[in-house]
Amino acid sequence: MEYLEKYFRLFDESRTSSKAREELISIFTEDMSFVLSDHKNSGIEKWENFLELIFTNNLDIKHMYEGWKLVEETGQYETKWAVCGKKKDGTIYTQTGKDIAELDKNGKIKYLENVPDDSSVFNSYK
Amino acid sequence: MEYLEKYFRLFDESRTSSKAREELISIFTEDMSFVLSDHKNSGIEKWENFLELIFTNNLDIKHMYEGWKLVEETGQYETKWAVCGKKKDGTIYTQTGKDIAELDKNGKIKYLENVPDDSSVFNSYK
Repeated sequence: MEYLEKYFRLFDESRTSSKAREELISIFTEDMSFVLSDHKNSGIEKWENFLELIFTNNLDIKHMYEGWKLVEETGQYETKWAVCGKKKDGTIYTQTGKDIAELDKNGKIKYLENVPDDSSVFNSYK
Repeated sequence: MEYLEKYFRLFDESRTSSKAREELISIFTEDMSFVLSDHKNSGIEKWENFLELIFTNNLDIKHMYEGWKLVEETGQYETKWAVCGKKKDGTIYTQTGKDIAELDKNGKIKYLENVPDDSSVFNSYK
């Protein structure tokens, strides 16, 4: 879980640090897929585009997470998260939800599902 | 508003930086008062005790704020804020609300009122 444990920190740091952004990309597999509120995307380039859009739309963003736990039945990892952020229009917001992750044999993230408690959160990213 | 503009950043940094904590204290007047969900406290020592309790109870905390604006009628400054945090028991949370501030003639904060949207937030700090 070495890569997975870096995920949220690298995500937040990627807003201002190109080094963090590079490392964030490197903890995923090339053929990774990610799900935002039931909408699935595949490939690391789509993920990079999503990150670019997030950081274009946010002047600041900070994640907190409870801690990744293995779900024995599925082999997936899950954690609750909370976010506060400031949009480019200056308004501030909070979100809560959970993430579900699958790792490849090297521990890199090959699947990441974002399940916000408010399912309308990612409508603009679909 | 030079001091006021530093408030949220210094608050968050004070969790891990004694230098930031000192600067945070210095942007308030000695006889300042603060209000948490209608409960009023007076004196900089009470404020320091409150900070100590916040950082004892939180493993991490991050504020976002929209921006302080002068309310002409009252001479007070107001801003909306959003917080995400991780409690010492490992659970994560979000909060939203507004702060109301009054400044002395040097621009130091002499009054700070925290009005959370969920008024039960500060029950444990009263």
